[in-house]
Amino acid sequence: MKKDKAPNETVISTEPISGSKKIYVKGKIHNINVAMREIILSPTKLHNGKIEKNAPVTVYDASGPYTDSSIQIDIKKGLPRLREQWILDRHDVEELKEVSSQYGNERLNDKSLDHLRFEHTKKLLRAKDNSNVSQLHYAKKGIITPEMEYIAIRENQRFDELKTMLNGSYETLSQQHAGNSFGARTPKGYITPEFVRDEIAAGRAIIPNNINHPESEPMIIGRNFLVKINANIGNSAVTSSIEEEVEKAVWACRWGADTIMDLSTGNNIHETREWIIRNSPVPIGTVPIYQALEKVNGKAEDLTWEIFKDTIIEQAEQGVDYFTIHAGVLLRYIPLTAKRVTGIVSRGGSIMAKWCLSHHKESFLYTHFEELCEIMKKYDVAFSLGDGLRPGSIADANDAAQFAELETLGELTKVAWKHDIQVMIEGPGHVPMHLIKENMEKQLEECHEAPFYTLGPLTTDIAPGYDHITSAIGAAMIGWYGCAMLCYVTPKEHLGLPNKKDVKDGVITYKLAAHAADLAKGHPGSQYRDNALSKARFEFRWEDQFNLSLDPDTAREFHDETLPADGAKVAHFCSMCGPKFCSMKITQEIRDFADEGMFEKSEEFKMKGTNIYS
Amino acid sequence: MKKDKAPNETVISTEPISGSKKIYVKGKIHNINVAMREIILSPTKLHNGKIEKNAPVTVYDASGPYTDSSIQIDIKKGLPRLREQWILDRHDVEELKEVSSQYGNERLNDKSLDHLRFEHTKKLLRAKDNSNVSQLHYAKKGIITPEMEYIAIRENQRFDELKTMLNGSYETLSQQHAGNSFGARTPKGYITPEFVRDEIAAGRAIIPNNINHPESEPMIIGRNFLVKINANIGNSAVTSSIEEEVEKAVWACRWGADTIMDLSTGNNIHETREWIIRNSPVPIGTVPIYQALEKVNGKAEDLTWEIFKDTIIEQAEQGVDYFTIHAGVLLRYIPLTAKRVTGIVSRGGSIMAKWCLSHHKESFLYTHFEELCEIMKKYDVAFSLGDGLRPGSIADANDAAQFAELETLGELTKVAWKHDIQVMIEGPGHVPMHLIKENMEKQLEECHEAPFYTLGPLTTDIAPGYDHITSAIGAAMIGWYGCAMLCYVTPKEHLGLPNKKDVKDGVITYKLAAHAADLAKGHPGSQYRDNALSKARFEFRWEDQFNLSLDPDTAREFHDETLPADGAKVAHFCSMCGPKFCSMKITQEIRDFADEGMFEKSEEFKMKGTNIYS
Repeated sequence: MKKDKAPNETVISTEPISGSKKIYVKGKIHNINVAMREIILSPTKLHNGKIEKNAPVTVYDASGPYTDSSIQIDIKKGLPRLREQWILDRHDVEELKEVSSQYGNERLNDKSLDHLRFEHTKKLLRAKDNSNVSQLHYAKKGIITPEMEYIAIRENQRFDELKTMLNGSYETLSQQHAGNSFGARTPKGYITPEFVRDEIAAGRAIIPNNINHPESEPMIIGRNFLVKINANIGNSAVTSSIEEEVEKAVWACRWGADTIMDLSTGNNIHETREWIIRNSPVPIGTVPIYQALEKVNGKAEDLTWEIFKDTIIEQAEQGVDYFTIHAGVLLRYIPLTAKRVTGIVSRGGSIMAKWCLSHHKESFLYTHFEELCEIMKKYDVAFSLGDGLRPGSIADANDAAQFAELETLGELTKVAWKHDIQVMIEGPGHVPMHLIKENMEKQLEECHEAPFYTLGPLTTDIAPGYDHITSAIGAAMIGWYGCAMLCYVTPKEHLGLPNKKDVKDGVITYKLAAHAADLAKGHPGSQYRDNALSKARFEFRWEDQFNLSLDPDTAREFHDETLPADGAKVAHFCSMCGPKFCSMKITQEIRDFADEGMFEKSEEFKMKGTNIYS
Repeated sequence: MKKDKAPNETVISTEPISGSKKIYVKGKIHNINVAMREIILSPTKLHNGKIEKNAPVTVYDASGPYTDSSIQIDIKKGLPRLREQWILDRHDVEELKEVSSQYGNERLNDKSLDHLRFEHTKKLLRAKDNSNVSQLHYAKKGIITPEMEYIAIRENQRFDELKTMLNGSYETLSQQHAGNSFGARTPKGYITPEFVRDEIAAGRAIIPNNINHPESEPMIIGRNFLVKINANIGNSAVTSSIEEEVEKAVWACRWGADTIMDLSTGNNIHETREWIIRNSPVPIGTVPIYQALEKVNGKAEDLTWEIFKDTIIEQAEQGVDYFTIHAGVLLRYIPLTAKRVTGIVSRGGSIMAKWCLSHHKESFLYTHFEELCEIMKKYDVAFSLGDGLRPGSIADANDAAQFAELETLGELTKVAWKHDIQVMIEGPGHVPMHLIKENMEKQLEECHEAPFYTLGPLTTDIAPGYDHITSAIGAAMIGWYGCAMLCYVTPKEHLGLPNKKDVKDGVITYKLAAHAADLAKGHPGSQYRDNALSKARFEFRWEDQFNLSLDPDTAREFHDETLPADGAKVAHFCSMCGPKFCSMKITQEIRDFADEGMFEKSEEFKMKGTNIYS
């Protein structure tokens, strides 16, 4: 077992992404600065010798302050607290003098942990009595929060048009662009703050946004927005350290993870989590039952509501933004899993099933669900209702156990909404392509359009070592069908815990799957980046092609393997055809021909050409 | 530029695939031995101490004699000529004394090439006058060839049931299993030799099967069979050697490539091709216009029908099994590409467009198409009608140029069929998910159900370095919709030529996409392997899990990174949860509970359980 130590500045990745700079877009309603990434492009050299500028491309940016070269990162202090003043300005929170959870206090007072502890103290907040600080609560009251405006701006990817939007009024612009075909629920054009509010109020989207994690930049999960991705990190009893986990979180955000789940099950998970939250620019999710289980030495039957409740409070006060809660594992569903090829594969699901089996009663998660709501609304922690009975193999996909639990998650969604708590629903897992759509349709129906958040799904079981790919196929498809967030799968799935390389492979793979889904859904502005990259490719602007890609470093490295000379990056040919013949060059000749009006002049090129064989 | 040399035995990969052995299944109609791969499984240790055997799993095997440890490989002699006697026994071929092509003769007589030349002489065959040696010709006459029976056997993956089938009659068995729902065109059960013949006769499937490539094992491309994959190899003017290309071909087959396309454009491509064909257990495809272009020093406008015709004969006599022919690039379609974001990206397409532009007339491929047919039927070379105007970016997908050419490919299909020549149709390229289905539907309609063979398609342009994945998403989907063969894309696509690692990454990625498609289509027996692997996973039979996977070496390596000890491979836990808690262990308890009848005895577990929240 490794010995933990506090993270070190030097292991954290901080440079800007190749060819990009951080920009900030000012809000109109609130005094906010929305972080985005601008990719600077080189001009096109026209064959007549003229130069044509290419406008920079602005993209959604989850990487946080780490990629802003003007910001000094100090992970011992944590990130700037972007949202703290927004929260305080709402005058519905109180500052606590000390943490409310018993376990939290024990850890704080344990001198042997001093060397591991995140030292910087932050304000500890909780809603005042009779207050509810959830974004759903504000949205229902018709309030557009700074969080909502922040999201509206960052969801619009085309900054050239965004500038126009910010000069005009939001409403006018969403009218102007009514030609867009992005689903029935969209503003048919730009995403406005009011649209964000409306989607939140309807429960169709959530903003995971704990008031004790003011370092995070607001983001939204809902099917009428960009498809999001989550990256799982976390140590287990046999591997990894705090230091590695913090760097994995920063690294995952750098490449585009929209949320991070800390799934640690090893030692010092309280301290590890604190380090991660204080340094995370994206929302953090956890599965609190994992830690509760550690507290009873791994004996599921010894779990109690009291231990779980203390864990919930402990984590809510640290700033966890969403909790996976497997409250849908009911007694009567457990026998449905006995004949499965792979039984129960969800850790949370099997813990609860074990508890139910031992006590012969419904789980405390289900029976105390309203109490859970009472706690979570005090911090604006969102529910991610876990699919404890998800299929773990193609054979078990869409079976009775899975769909029975989904129904219960739908009932619990309504209970949470009664408390104005934000909810998303977790989904599988392993599903062959022809059964994916049914998952999405049933989820929308049973769970009243609450956002769906799936793990893949993997579309075959026979490729361990490549499950980022088997699952990216299913993820892209379910994203297209309406899934709001895709939980990544790394190449190590089923085999081991992901290292830094696996985390990047998983994140990039899921970013491309999410983007493929955005394209298929017709999200406004999504195809802009594809077009810019393809134009750069066609014009042999190699550096632009690299910089516009999801992973400029790998694209450049692969290119240089075949043609390492710098000259090759400005050459008007590539390694596939070599310098003598080039298909792209020929297209240029066709264009010249068209420019000269040759097609119109010549009979042969007209559409009526003779047909020898018909 | 590298200096070529003849391949060396030592660089060729020859060991059996981990945990597998080669088996041969005897035919019933013909005296044939069908090569398959058997994965041997360890027994399940039941918790009551008993042992339960797991039957071996038989899988389709494209790797050829290289993975048979009892066969001595000598690449200087080439592979055993499996089909030679079958061909001679049909008495419709004559043996030629010398090669018919002028260029072929020049190369043979060039002493400076002696050190590069494949030395072993083989029989040089051509159909007798008035004979047609294509499998389509035989199929239409109602003849079940040894090739067809070979295919029928290897397409049935479940060897346990296959044994039953081989004891009974083919017809009876296809009746017995009529419950299967594998599409309207399938035998609704096992694949019989008669079904193979019928699909070939209808033009819905092809067997690329040049009589001068008797080393290849028969395989079929058609949407009512297993989805196949192709791997492109080949050097260009700036990179790679003969030696590397031969090993790449063997390596690609090892991991599952069903056909290989040799796309060489550099020096000595005649000699490179000879080495590849003589040592390839799978059909070889080429794009003959590439070589023809080399013969006119890269000047497309200098190409002539005579040069092309000589190239076709040269390659047909070497044994190329299918030719990509871009005969659908008509004059009147060229202007349709001028406004595209990425113009013409197909090399073959742009060569022909350039020729048409220069000469102001329809291409010689189109005007001499019937002459082409006359040549190709003498050797049973199949057409792969090339999509010279395929979209090279998301922006250009499904546009007028693409679909206009597809219509012409449909016309040419009918011309080829008139000559009993086998035909498949090539497709794109870059297509967003929501436009993929239209491609498949239009192809089936316009091309009269001739098999479709697509390159991906890539579902987004923004991930160079990961285009094996962006395209695997599209490939799996179009495979599900009915595409018969998927041309792989490697991580180097758009950036450089693939090395050995890239070839393997591309092949495994496409095998998993093809398998995901087979599952979704319900191909008989496909899910068998998934179930066997998931059962092994669930029972912690780690070695079986590795050996059942598409790439046992990588799965094992990834596992060992976290838990390298040999003990960990028999341990009943994995690195994800650690030894203390394990979800799979809990499912075992649920099963024990079920076995003891506890669910029936206990009121709480019955399906009527109370519902607190509804």
